[in-house]
Amino acid sequence: MIGRLNHVAIAVPDLMAAADQYRGALGAEVGPPLDQPDHGVTVIFITLPNTKIELLYPLGDASPIAKFLDKNPAGGIHHICYEVDDLVAARDRLTATGARVLGDGTPKIGAHGKPVLFLHPKDFQGTLVELEQV
Amino acid sequence: MIGRLNHVAIAVPDLMAAADQYRGALGAEVGPPLDQPDHGVTVIFITLPNTKIELLYPLGDASPIAKFLDKNPAGGIHHICYEVDDLVAARDRLTATGARVLGDGTPKIGAHGKPVLFLHPKDFQGTLVELEQV
Repeated sequence: MIGRLNHVAIAVPDLMAAADQYRGALGAEVGPPLDQPDHGVTVIFITLPNTKIELLYPLGDASPIAKFLDKNPAGGIHHICYEVDDLVAARDRLTATGARVLGDGTPKIGAHGKPVLFLHPKDFQGTLVELEQV
Repeated sequence: MIGRLNHVAIAVPDLMAAADQYRGALGAEVGPPLDQPDHGVTVIFITLPNTKIELLYPLGDASPIAKFLDKNPAGGIHHICYEVDDLVAARDRLTATGARVLGDGTPKIGAHGKPVLFLHPKDFQGTLVELEQV
């Protein structure tokens, strides 16, 4: 069912410092900061040959990653995203096994303009998993 | 400098339950458990089209992930691994920027039989980063 690893999202306490480090110390291809007010984050995409890293920084008062950074002030890996062909079919297969989907279970439009769902980390080895329909 | 994302490693409290979930609920291609006594882990590889997920479970008394699971009993993402062409050149570039390498800075043979180094998470947004020479 799951396809490619679409991205690894890393929450960071200083977005430009993190971007500079990926560009300088790691020599990676680092994009510009992009505000995504609907998602409460500013994002920088790092393009690797086979997938992406997304550096996330809180934007606005109700950012979903503010609490994560409170608990992890140095930053940390926030979630991983797997691609699926059919998000509703994936959700139904998952919930049939007892796995919980965050929110009301309705796909939302994610940061890439595509439908996404998040799975409950307690049901997935402590890992926040995003599914994105591609 | 960094190339492909080689893998995402997830430490899990119940290896077979995690494997069953990736196989069943997520429909992924899940390999058999592999004991790696030199690294203190039992590993299951999950093959995605563009990269791998490694499920890690402690093996032996001095497993490097036992403490992580003590702190994160539900499991969690343990590290990410980037590929590099020249590990010693990568190390020298990193340490020149002030980033610390774990241990004595000498590449070790990693779980895939290739030279690896780990970077200090405090220098990389709270993320444990492995570099593997491919």
